[in-house]
Amino acid sequence: MVDCIVIGAGAAGVSAALTLKALKINFIWLGNKDLSVKIRSAEKIKNYPGLYGVSGGDLKDAFLSQINGEGIEITEDKVNGVYPSDGGYTVLGGKSSYEAKTVILATGVEALKPVKGEAEFLGRGVSYCAVCDGFLYRGKEIAVVIEGEEEFSEVQLLAQYARTIHLFCIKKLDLPAIENVMFEEGRLMEIKGDMRVKSVVCGGREIAVDGVFVLKQAIAADNLVHGLKTVGGQVEVARNGATNLAGVFAAGDVTGRPYQYAKAAGEGNVCAYSVNAYLNSLKTAK
Amino acid sequence: MVDCIVIGAGAAGVSAALTLKALKINFIWLGNKDLSVKIRSAEKIKNYPGLYGVSGGDLKDAFLSQINGEGIEITEDKVNGVYPSDGGYTVLGGKSSYEAKTVILATGVEALKPVKGEAEFLGRGVSYCAVCDGFLYRGKEIAVVIEGEEEFSEVQLLAQYARTIHLFCIKKLDLPAIENVMFEEGRLMEIKGDMRVKSVVCGGREIAVDGVFVLKQAIAADNLVHGLKTVGGQVEVARNGATNLAGVFAAGDVTGRPYQYAKAAGEGNVCAYSVNAYLNSLKTAK
Repeated sequence: MVDCIVIGAGAAGVSAALTLKALKINFIWLGNKDLSVKIRSAEKIKNYPGLYGVSGGDLKDAFLSQINGEGIEITEDKVNGVYPSDGGYTVLGGKSSYEAKTVILATGVEALKPVKGEAEFLGRGVSYCAVCDGFLYRGKEIAVVIEGEEEFSEVQLLAQYARTIHLFCIKKLDLPAIENVMFEEGRLMEIKGDMRVKSVVCGGREIAVDGVFVLKQAIAADNLVHGLKTVGGQVEVARNGATNLAGVFAAGDVTGRPYQYAKAAGEGNVCAYSVNAYLNSLKTAK
Repeated sequence: MVDCIVIGAGAAGVSAALTLKALKINFIWLGNKDLSVKIRSAEKIKNYPGLYGVSGGDLKDAFLSQINGEGIEITEDKVNGVYPSDGGYTVLGGKSSYEAKTVILATGVEALKPVKGEAEFLGRGVSYCAVCDGFLYRGKEIAVVIEGEEEFSEVQLLAQYARTIHLFCIKKLDLPAIENVMFEEGRLMEIKGDMRVKSVVCGGREIAVDGVFVLKQAIAADNLVHGLKTVGGQVEVARNGATNLAGVFAAGDVTGRPYQYAKAAGEGNVCAYSVNAYLNSLKTAK
């Protein structure tokens, strides 16, 4: 069990990781090795103090060289859930599970609004993780929603299990054909069922499916962490980043507006200090 | 009357100014043209996201080139008090006074604890501003406390008025001699008097004086802004940087630990957005 797990590799996660390192706290950092898409895709940033007029790519390079310089590793794994466990939290990833005394959520703001029925059928036919749940749909018919090209490797994996995949892409993507993957036009509007998922609705059509994989960059924080208090989709935090769950802190866009690099970096920094104080309080309590 | 006055040119002030500019809010920025001493004096910074292993001097240069690039001006004036006025606040500086609808306090943490009697005799013999109050002590005997070389020009100014100056330097400084300035050994421990200042205490000696100038880099925020709520010397703020006074926001070390560049920059950014929201609410209220 490590002291802390940082989830997310945007500006908040980067800042939290750098300061945890400076505070000599041992941690696992889960995210994209190439950092958050949101960092990379910014065109020109003028108000991040100290880096003037840089592109998202420049900022990403600056962050990565700093992370490498400090010998910090990013573990590339998608997080599907955070659950309380003995003395801390278990983070269920697609490849492995991880245990820590504290968690810093820096998962960003959800670009995609949840589809109607998504939260309701989560765990009952709706999954966020192809690696974890793909095998359950061997020979079955499923719908898959992807946000960008990043998720296509998961579609390829699912195609090895499922009989047919109805694929919904949020953005226009230029993807290679796969025999049993049908590229659907329009948006997936609703997930329907009773005890389990039975169908999806798209452009007035209803398609019978056994499961739905929603493969997004970010999952709504309260779907990710059971019992986490959110208000209007934002994690409610104190000034020190503490959430309603002891040992769970949150930083960056996930805590609300303004959606700004400087704000996110500041909150990541503060959370690292708060984790330090919390770990010290655990020692004293013993 | 401008929309906002930013007080202080540390990381929080820099970030607030850059984002106010980005939000097209007209503002005056009061501080040191060469930025806060605390930025400049850092030896090596490893956890400010995006600028790796830079010195305080490097960070200062990066900030200044960004500020210049955005055409932002720093008005070099020392702030002696912030007072409510019609439709906003009046900021009394050493050289001029300034009016704005909102104020962002980014004055940093006080490196010097207030001397005993300092708050009690403020305005009754204790002054923070040589330029404003020096002329009141023509031909009189005064004590002056300075933090660093930065304040020596104010001592030179006071020497043109006062008969004798008892000078207390916090750090060991190599300053040129002035005829009527006596360099005192030891620390100024207490300011005494009844209706007004009568003497100062230093190393067991009591020296009769008519006034005391305390020339510090940062003044305690609640001495600076009448009615501002502080807890343990820190300005109490909400998550959006709002203080107990409508239209007054605070960012950076002045709001408490951690004393970190990233935290300060983040809070400055948030305050700029909060000022924007507050100004919009004023328009709607009309």
